[in-house]
Amino acid sequence: MRAIRYIFLCFYLFFFCTELNAQQLEWLEVEPGIWKTTIGNPEQYNLLTASGVVPYHEGLVRLEKSSFPLSKSDITAKVVDGKTYLKFPLDKTEQLFGFGLNFKTVNQRGKIMELHVDHYNGSDNGRTHSPTPFYVSSKGYGIFINSARYLKVYAGATVQRDSKNPPKVQDRNTDPDWNPHPYSDGVEILVPAEGVEIFVMGGPTAMNAVQRFNLFNGGGCLPPRWGLGFTQRMERLTDADGVYKEAMAFEEKGYPLDFIGLEPGWQSKSYPNTFEWDKKRFPEPEKMVKELLEKNIRLNLWINPYVSPDAPFYKRLFPYTASHTVWAGVVPDLNTDSARSLLFGALEKNKVSIGISGYKIDEVDGGDGYLWPDLATFPSGISAEQMRQTYGLLMQRYTTKLYQDRNVRTYGLVRGSNAGGVSFPYVIYNDYYNHQDFITALINSGFAGVLWTPEVRASSNPEEWVRRFQSNVFSPMAMINAWASGTKPWTFPEVAPIIKEFALLRMQMMPYWYSEFAKYHFEGIPPFRATNLEQGFQNITPVKETKNDNLEENPYAKAITREIKDQYMAGENLLVAPMFTGQKSRTVILPKGKWFDFYTGKYVGNGEVITTIPGLEKIPVYVKDGGIIPMTKPILHAPKASEKIDIEFRYYGSKPGIYQLYDDDGETYNYEKGEYSVRAIKISKINNKLVGSISVAQKGKPNSINKITYKMMTP
Amino acid sequence: MRAIRYIFLCFYLFFFCTELNAQQLEWLEVEPGIWKTTIGNPEQYNLLTASGVVPYHEGLVRLEKSSFPLSKSDITAKVVDGKTYLKFPLDKTEQLFGFGLNFKTVNQRGKIMELHVDHYNGSDNGRTHSPTPFYVSSKGYGIFINSARYLKVYAGATVQRDSKNPPKVQDRNTDPDWNPHPYSDGVEILVPAEGVEIFVMGGPTAMNAVQRFNLFNGGGCLPPRWGLGFTQRMERLTDADGVYKEAMAFEEKGYPLDFIGLEPGWQSKSYPNTFEWDKKRFPEPEKMVKELLEKNIRLNLWINPYVSPDAPFYKRLFPYTASHTVWAGVVPDLNTDSARSLLFGALEKNKVSIGISGYKIDEVDGGDGYLWPDLATFPSGISAEQMRQTYGLLMQRYTTKLYQDRNVRTYGLVRGSNAGGVSFPYVIYNDYYNHQDFITALINSGFAGVLWTPEVRASSNPEEWVRRFQSNVFSPMAMINAWASGTKPWTFPEVAPIIKEFALLRMQMMPYWYSEFAKYHFEGIPPFRATNLEQGFQNITPVKETKNDNLEENPYAKAITREIKDQYMAGENLLVAPMFTGQKSRTVILPKGKWFDFYTGKYVGNGEVITTIPGLEKIPVYVKDGGIIPMTKPILHAPKASEKIDIEFRYYGSKPGIYQLYDDDGETYNYEKGEYSVRAIKISKINNKLVGSISVAQKGKPNSINKITYKMMTP
Repeated sequence: MRAIRYIFLCFYLFFFCTELNAQQLEWLEVEPGIWKTTIGNPEQYNLLTASGVVPYHEGLVRLEKSSFPLSKSDITAKVVDGKTYLKFPLDKTEQLFGFGLNFKTVNQRGKIMELHVDHYNGSDNGRTHSPTPFYVSSKGYGIFINSARYLKVYAGATVQRDSKNPPKVQDRNTDPDWNPHPYSDGVEILVPAEGVEIFVMGGPTAMNAVQRFNLFNGGGCLPPRWGLGFTQRMERLTDADGVYKEAMAFEEKGYPLDFIGLEPGWQSKSYPNTFEWDKKRFPEPEKMVKELLEKNIRLNLWINPYVSPDAPFYKRLFPYTASHTVWAGVVPDLNTDSARSLLFGALEKNKVSIGISGYKIDEVDGGDGYLWPDLATFPSGISAEQMRQTYGLLMQRYTTKLYQDRNVRTYGLVRGSNAGGVSFPYVIYNDYYNHQDFITALINSGFAGVLWTPEVRASSNPEEWVRRFQSNVFSPMAMINAWASGTKPWTFPEVAPIIKEFALLRMQMMPYWYSEFAKYHFEGIPPFRATNLEQGFQNITPVKETKNDNLEENPYAKAITREIKDQYMAGENLLVAPMFTGQKSRTVILPKGKWFDFYTGKYVGNGEVITTIPGLEKIPVYVKDGGIIPMTKPILHAPKASEKIDIEFRYYGSKPGIYQLYDDDGETYNYEKGEYSVRAIKISKINNKLVGSISVAQKGKPNSINKITYKMMTP
Repeated sequence: MRAIRYIFLCFYLFFFCTELNAQQLEWLEVEPGIWKTTIGNPEQYNLLTASGVVPYHEGLVRLEKSSFPLSKSDITAKVVDGKTYLKFPLDKTEQLFGFGLNFKTVNQRGKIMELHVDHYNGSDNGRTHSPTPFYVSSKGYGIFINSARYLKVYAGATVQRDSKNPPKVQDRNTDPDWNPHPYSDGVEILVPAEGVEIFVMGGPTAMNAVQRFNLFNGGGCLPPRWGLGFTQRMERLTDADGVYKEAMAFEEKGYPLDFIGLEPGWQSKSYPNTFEWDKKRFPEPEKMVKELLEKNIRLNLWINPYVSPDAPFYKRLFPYTASHTVWAGVVPDLNTDSARSLLFGALEKNKVSIGISGYKIDEVDGGDGYLWPDLATFPSGISAEQMRQTYGLLMQRYTTKLYQDRNVRTYGLVRGSNAGGVSFPYVIYNDYYNHQDFITALINSGFAGVLWTPEVRASSNPEEWVRRFQSNVFSPMAMINAWASGTKPWTFPEVAPIIKEFALLRMQMMPYWYSEFAKYHFEGIPPFRATNLEQGFQNITPVKETKNDNLEENPYAKAITREIKDQYMAGENLLVAPMFTGQKSRTVILPKGKWFDFYTGKYVGNGEVITTIPGLEKIPVYVKDGGIIPMTKPILHAPKASEKIDIEFRYYGSKPGIYQLYDDDGETYNYEKGEYSVRAIKISKINNKLVGSISVAQKGKPNSINKITYKMMTP
């Protein structure tokens, strides 16, 4: 037997190696400005098949044309020892962004990481909630590796002996500038599979490459309007009475509230879960959901996918579960029809069917300490590794489908995602609770094809509470997560007025946020993203500083480049520079062009480093010259589909301004069939006076605008 | 082409899977108490073939017999997706030790790690200098996986759905004792290869399993006598004059000195290296070595294996080097004869050949940031991963051979090792400089088949200096490493007398250390090891404490078991309990049986927890009841082969004492041919008086003993 097997192995290897060594990479333009090549035998199961998304072709067609952005001969690939080795070129000045949702660094050049879905644990080593195998170069192109394996990435950290651009050889004995990390001319990636497909995203700008990636993944999600309001997650063991009281308290105190999150205690048992309402805490869920909906408040339910023996569908599910359990619950194999119909059937019944607005999907990321191990097996034959890389995608895909089937939008939370998840209406969150790093994650989310919320939990003092809350308002989901602490917006009475002001500001800005998310969907522009993607930002050189040159403490001391990771773009026109506890002032690096204070409209600077002392009452926010921010009144709930709202267009600066205001019913997928409108707002100088105008409403298209006013902010 | 390849692949997979699913594990007793099984197609290149060691059969035969220590049907293995999945049973109370040189934990149960040769970086995650794939159970058996791959280990951290011993299902909503880490009934190991060989080491005790592992790997190393003296490593750019002055200073001030280490500056260029003496700093190396040897002082040379274009053999070596460079130096493929003969030829010529006593082999461990990447290729066809796991072994193997060929022993330093390296005369060191964790590493070295030195570098104050020095004296290599700081033993004059006392104590204890290393070689007993391996220790239950039960800060809070990781056994009779900076007192857990103070001979306790307040002048050391410690005079250099020494046998307690004193020429490998002697020292009570005796010297065997005295220490 062994001999026969061996003969076949030899034949196989012979043909295999012969072909691969000879292979030249062939690039096919699969969408405008997107080229694909196939190396070896790519696996059938990958990030795109797991997510089931299709490119948003119409969006891609609208983008500026691009030629292949690299020298084709500089991209090499081979299959060795059952693994695929890739190399992409890298010049001396290039910066690299992406490789997933990193929390501490923006420029990933020089990093070594293993892209691995996991709970973020304090180190940008590839283990994160969305380790998206996509990177963008400051030179204006992107690379996407469509693999559901753990990819080992050397992002300019390796030196090939036969390199055409070798680093210089130094003598450490005598050269004080001896470099422990010599110049590397390539990004090398190890794919632990006998082949893979890769995509090159053209530019000409880095933003264009990001847009192409997002559109190729179906375009960004467009949340329902209410998703962009305010949400409060309740203490884990609350009951229906607690929910009513919470809703009432928000109303009475005048704080906005669009949806309430219920944590594990809505179920009869959790960790592992029954997916059944607890009859004592929630005796009449349907009635409760209905009554809250009448007040324009929705409910979102926490879940993780690990099924308790007490779940009604446990026995039927059992054959379609993994070899290993998680918290003694079985793990549904979401690549089998049977497991899917049972799990998502349970999520539909008495939940989506009675009006539950969405889910918070926990623990589909990791950590290793509780998830299935890499040597678990699944009935579908998909490996534990591939399941780990895609479980969050699968959960998003099929919960989203529950809503798509009803033509109702959802907006929820998830703790694990990956490439392919761009279009799913989910925001990533986690338990790692560092405000500064949360902002860096928000920056990097724009490179990773995901949304991220710097959610607010408990704070140890009023200052921290205010600072975290202010950032949270300028993010994809404005949320207090009180699952463990029971924190309310008014928990620190001494600063409650500031909190209320920002909660209401979130609501006022809803027309802006909604239009900016429409750009995410239709144009692939991330609503929250790095200032590095802003034109005119690249010219500001980061400062170089050396960390520690004590040989004994740091024998491989390296010059550290300080980078900008505490300011970000929020939509087309805003630059946000959060304040952190203890800070009285901070510096902000403004891209070229004039910038204006969001609150006062005053000019602050142009392509320079400014220092601001905003006081506790303000988070520094700046508006581009000519920027228009559409605002509404300080409402307590997002407007309903039929509701009309007043809009005030705030205008900053002196340049002629134009803004595309997006509108649709805010609740259904009808926009996909063209049921939306875009109206152009213009501010121009006529007879030395600023005058606003708006294009006429398109006939037969959604129009939720009531009264319009213009406010010229800049004095 | 692709179709043909595919057909062969299908045939191959068909035969492959058929065979493996049907496979029953067959166990063959390959040495007394050691069983081997083979799963799938093990790779030809593994830890044992890389190190080239053969079992020390005579030693194994002398051990107590053992039956197969586990239920054979509880060990399972299968090959899935090109990887081997192993499972070993684990009962509820079992503790697991080993899995390499860990620095923070002793009991590894519950851990998930990827065994990967690397520089230790602060976390016991499998990345360490010797990630030995061997573990020992408190139930008295050991498991060794002979693979040079990165093994993923789940040490009791996984739960199989179909387990016969499943954990209980809990409801987190209502159960305050909900366990985020349910009971796991197995150790699962993923070997990323299509087969592997594994070995089970019988007991009956955990110590026996350790002995079998060490003897199976050739038996522990027996250093030359001078290796157990004192060594000073000099500032990296010192010259010959500096070396002479250093030797003189030690002599004049009365500090012992057996060998001096030269750091990178002995070479004309370093990082990458020329392996040539720098002509300015060392114009006459042969003369220098000779003159120092006349003073009984040896020289050891730092190297790493990365070769500079300025090395004379660079061009000839080039074809036999890796695809990637390290610090712009080429990486010799040590699995090719050509690379070996060039590199080790350079290490022989003008170095070993003129009397250099050994090497310090740096940077064969990692980190990833400078070593070759996992997608490097080597001319021998051995993968980058396998090279990473074995490079330290290969360097040790072939440098040792240079000395074996001359019938001269060496004793050096290395930063990377693995299973298979037990018999190599090298001690591991690193740049991670935490005194407490250094002691935990010393404990774990005894489970990992390696030696480890808690070397002393610079200290920030006299107390730290003394405390580190005291621990260092009770370790495999007593060393100051001044490569960056230039520190001397007398750097802190206020505590210099204490330092000198302990440096001289190291020399006085040389007969003890030498006999204890003989036990490492002949019996496989690690000279430095956990008190857990001591009989009567297991009964003391560690305290359970919960770390943090704030749900928000620690959502998966777990009861933490406090473990004993700051005391260790040094040879047969000593228990060492180091003091750390800032401590005035400490507790020591004594195994059952009476224990006595090393310095005063006074009784201190029996199977209990004692508290000691030793003052800065002492490191707490305790002696077993009946323990005998052979000591000599406070000499400045190890005795030469022909030299005779006086021995004082110190006796502690009241039980009849016996000690096996080992003797040989101290310098050659002649002991392997039987040229050694073991003399039995006995202390017995005759007429109520303690009387010492020694067996007669064996005729024609080495005997370096001059005058003998006995000292009854216990008052």
